[in-house]
Amino acid sequence: MKSDDHRASVHIVGAGLIGASIGVGLAAEGWPVTIADRDDDAARLARGIGAGGAPGDGDAPDLIIVAVPPAAAAEAVIAALRAWPEAVVTDVASVKTPIATAVDATGQGSRYVGSHPMAGREVSGSLAAQGDLFRARPWVLCPNGASASAQALVRAVAEALGADVVVMDAARHDATVARTSHAPQVAASAVAAALAGLDASDVALAGQGLRDVTRIAASEPEMWRDIARLNEANLRETLRHIIGDLEKVREAADMGSALAALIERGRSEVARIPGKHGAKRRDWAEITVIVPDEPGELLRLLNSVAEEYVNVEDLAIEHSPRQPVGLVRLSVLPARATALVEALVAEGWEIAAS
Amino acid sequence: MKSDDHRASVHIVGAGLIGASIGVGLAAEGWPVTIADRDDDAARLARGIGAGGAPGDGDAPDLIIVAVPPAAAAEAVIAALRAWPEAVVTDVASVKTPIATAVDATGQGSRYVGSHPMAGREVSGSLAAQGDLFRARPWVLCPNGASASAQALVRAVAEALGADVVVMDAARHDATVARTSHAPQVAASAVAAALAGLDASDVALAGQGLRDVTRIAASEPEMWRDIARLNEANLRETLRHIIGDLEKVREAADMGSALAALIERGRSEVARIPGKHGAKRRDWAEITVIVPDEPGELLRLLNSVAEEYVNVEDLAIEHSPRQPVGLVRLSVLPARATALVEALVAEGWEIAAS
Repeated sequence: MKSDDHRASVHIVGAGLIGASIGVGLAAEGWPVTIADRDDDAARLARGIGAGGAPGDGDAPDLIIVAVPPAAAAEAVIAALRAWPEAVVTDVASVKTPIATAVDATGQGSRYVGSHPMAGREVSGSLAAQGDLFRARPWVLCPNGASASAQALVRAVAEALGADVVVMDAARHDATVARTSHAPQVAASAVAAALAGLDASDVALAGQGLRDVTRIAASEPEMWRDIARLNEANLRETLRHIIGDLEKVREAADMGSALAALIERGRSEVARIPGKHGAKRRDWAEITVIVPDEPGELLRLLNSVAEEYVNVEDLAIEHSPRQPVGLVRLSVLPARATALVEALVAEGWEIAAS
Repeated sequence: MKSDDHRASVHIVGAGLIGASIGVGLAAEGWPVTIADRDDDAARLARGIGAGGAPGDGDAPDLIIVAVPPAAAAEAVIAALRAWPEAVVTDVASVKTPIATAVDATGQGSRYVGSHPMAGREVSGSLAAQGDLFRARPWVLCPNGASASAQALVRAVAEALGADVVVMDAARHDATVARTSHAPQVAASAVAAALAGLDASDVALAGQGLRDVTRIAASEPEMWRDIARLNEANLRETLRHIIGDLEKVREAADMGSALAALIERGRSEVARIPGKHGAKRRDWAEITVIVPDEPGELLRLLNSVAEEYVNVEDLAIEHSPRQPVGLVRLSVLPARATALVEALVAEGWEIAAS
């Protein structure tokens, strides 16, 4: 076990999006990687895009990365610990406690480090595998009872892939993601489901707020079925909290005051969600520009912005339901906003709001 | 009352963002506009930015637009109907039934048309007034018992401002916005409030999903207090629906299957939210590109895209919490995606996912 060696040999079990992306990324960095899948076609496909070679009869790998669906992860991790009795094993499931508990029962916990690379779930399909999938994304390490060398090896993998490593114990990870990821999914789906029965003309009143709240309601249900089962207690507790707050508004004698109180509480929490580079979210000035919905127009707008030497900190496009224009919301440094608006108007852009 | 005249004279009561923006927009189109506010400074400011003149002793206006906070709208509409017994009156409040009911009781309903211009509430402050605020946004007309000429006059105003006119009765409007706007606000705030107690390092695990769901949780509570009071019955019914769905998940013996079922229902509803130009949301291909967070880099990326003659249908920027790069998600026609990725890679762009 060469835990300090950044070129340790890696074997990946599971050639889906996450497994294949790890393989592509590590192989590109020169790590010796093999990849397998119980579906031979998936394994061949992954190898074909450079996610690693076929396992041979040579030396045992230093690290096994189990990248199977969350419901199958605990069993696969234990099988890997048994099959490679000298190797470090990690996995990529989005719920960590059930796996840690199952591993502890085997007495092999010193060789197991839980991982949760938080790559966007909106991407799917193994053909979409990219070595840079994890770059600049959080990668949670749950060391549990792992040895220092085992932790160092898994950290080296995450860092080789450009991820931001965050160390957290499994119980805390699961309680946190129930609130930051799992419950928001349930709430978004419930808000979307409440549109049932509206006519198409009614739904057309949807604004950007509804679009934002329900974007993740378009998620595939399969993985969420697993996640809810594995993180049931934490998700139940978070839903209890959210339902309690909704009930407080629904049952209030003065619904207006109850909602205002809830909004105040939510505002102070949402302000804690980090913005850029771990810094506190800044109050950018927003400028909304009307842009013809034609190729090149967005580019032309950003050219106009660049000519003023203003950096666009954020950008959102809202399409008009019935007109051939889009509303482009630019977030810029407040100190630059007024001059930028003047310059854009001078160049003929229509400003919808600033 | 010259309801067919697109240059009918208009008097605006209330010089906040909405009132002043209507004034600026109509005045720019050559309509004779006056504007007043019980706060003299606000009225002077609005007149200073071209939102209309001071009311004189001349002819009575043809149309009164009441643009006061929602809780004060019914009283102000009735006062306007009394003060100008020949004029048409409209208002801009986001809940319509209480005003329609109050007006009906006066017997003057033929002169009243309810309006709800659905301009982004994220913009605030009268200094932000812009005549184009309503362009390409829905503007709901609730005719109630209004005469045809009264309806035509208010429609002419909305169209002069470039809005998409949608006609709907007040009860239906209020039931609809409870589901498309008011309940999503409550749910977003409840999801945000459930982050209470997490450490800053935990909140740093927030992904784009949580950011999207909770964006409107940053809203100001004051207007929502009014809205909840005025639309209490509809909001209560929608919250009952959402709470019921959340309870079904929380109480399920198999939480995973219950969540998967809810996600399936939500998916079919969210697919009905119109995308561009009233068309059904298309399945764009998404390409995520790693972009250095420096002025001009986003522009350089879009230049690369434009060189391939690919139109960017949508664009979202996600900032990395700890690294000086952003992830830019481009939505493009699926048929163009593969060639675009190849071209971007050839130009040296790093693709995080496609």
